[in-house]
Amino acid sequence: MNEEQHIVSGFDRDLEAIQAKVMKMGGLVEAAILDASKSLKNRDEELAEQVRNADQAIDELEDQINADCAQVLALRAPTAVDLRVVLSVMKIAANLERIGDYAKNMAKRTSVLVHMTPVEGARGGLRRMAREVQLMLKDVLDAYIQRDAELARDVLERDRDIDQMYNALFREFLTFMMEDPRYISPCMHLHFIAKNTERMGDHVTSIAEQVIYLVTGQMPEDTRPKATRIEAE
Amino acid sequence: MNEEQHIVSGFDRDLEAIQAKVMKMGGLVEAAILDASKSLKNRDEELAEQVRNADQAIDELEDQINADCAQVLALRAPTAVDLRVVLSVMKIAANLERIGDYAKNMAKRTSVLVHMTPVEGARGGLRRMAREVQLMLKDVLDAYIQRDAELARDVLERDRDIDQMYNALFREFLTFMMEDPRYISPCMHLHFIAKNTERMGDHVTSIAEQVIYLVTGQMPEDTRPKATRIEAE
Repeated sequence: MNEEQHIVSGFDRDLEAIQAKVMKMGGLVEAAILDASKSLKNRDEELAEQVRNADQAIDELEDQINADCAQVLALRAPTAVDLRVVLSVMKIAANLERIGDYAKNMAKRTSVLVHMTPVEGARGGLRRMAREVQLMLKDVLDAYIQRDAELARDVLERDRDIDQMYNALFREFLTFMMEDPRYISPCMHLHFIAKNTERMGDHVTSIAEQVIYLVTGQMPEDTRPKATRIEAE
Repeated sequence: MNEEQHIVSGFDRDLEAIQAKVMKMGGLVEAAILDASKSLKNRDEELAEQVRNADQAIDELEDQINADCAQVLALRAPTAVDLRVVLSVMKIAANLERIGDYAKNMAKRTSVLVHMTPVEGARGGLRRMAREVQLMLKDVLDAYIQRDAELARDVLERDRDIDQMYNALFREFLTFMMEDPRYISPCMHLHFIAKNTERMGDHVTSIAEQVIYLVTGQMPEDTRPKATRIEAE
């Protein structure tokens, strides 16, 4: 075994350890999305509280991943594809952290909403939307591990459904608010939850783009998600 | 001049070029914030359109900065402080890009709002808030260039004012909506603008934390802005 092979496999070992942390982080974020939307659906304050507390572990994992990546950059000085992978991992971790924040925010608003007039019918739609985002996240993490650009592209496509779900909910909330002023306050919160869930979808989309970039060496053509989707009304 | 000095100064030259792009990006983002809030205040659809179009240049600068940083990492293999600077620059550029997106979003909503019932009084508060965020951004970029942790800490402090301004606007919009159902739709948009402006403040805060990290080697103690402020109601 020559020196170069030794260096390469050292990098691979480091990367594997970092990727394990990314997967762990992804699992925690998926759970946060599901639990947050469940707490909203069932008006379960205790579960909402758990989601809020669980976010710290997600944040800490991101810090660890950043520190690990910095160390790999310093010690291994990767170039070309290896460098691209390390930079992608940092971006993916940042996206996961943001999704976790949005889940935490959903839980925080749930804690407020349980003390307000219930808006019947709206919470089911929000839960379906959150469920769909969680499935997209699951798939994009699989796509990352398997370096599967096709699956990542599929996730990109599905973000359109999320946008449509958001638009439908937006109109629904407006109708509720027009009908009865008592719905205005709760609907403001529900609307933010819908918007934040849509933003989770945008961050999943960003991860999908990172995967495509990683596998193919270039970003997918027709999108810059941050510039287009995040602000789609 | 020995080889090591040569390498170091090569890194410095590269970094200087990258930092120049960050400053240019910062200037464009500052202008976007000011123009977007001006277009909102004056119901100026044309200016709003300009802001929306100008966002592409901001996005492109971020792409360039990322590519330049990747190249520096690959060619110079920086370690210790130098590595920290490069990673910070990437994070700062990402934050600037997001702030630019929020400004673009404000402009997009302005284009919708000009066709709705004007909500008198609200737009002044939004403009003051945007102006304050723009000043914070200006200061944090100065703090970055001058490696001034004190100024960065001052920016951190000022983010509380932004949060207070947001909370006051939130209550104001609720009152409008309760008073007259015709205000519901425009107030939803104004509320999102307020929230997005508050989020711009969070991203300025993230930059301030990067500056503090860069100068002192550690993150400021009492905050993880993404975990706390971004979701402050």
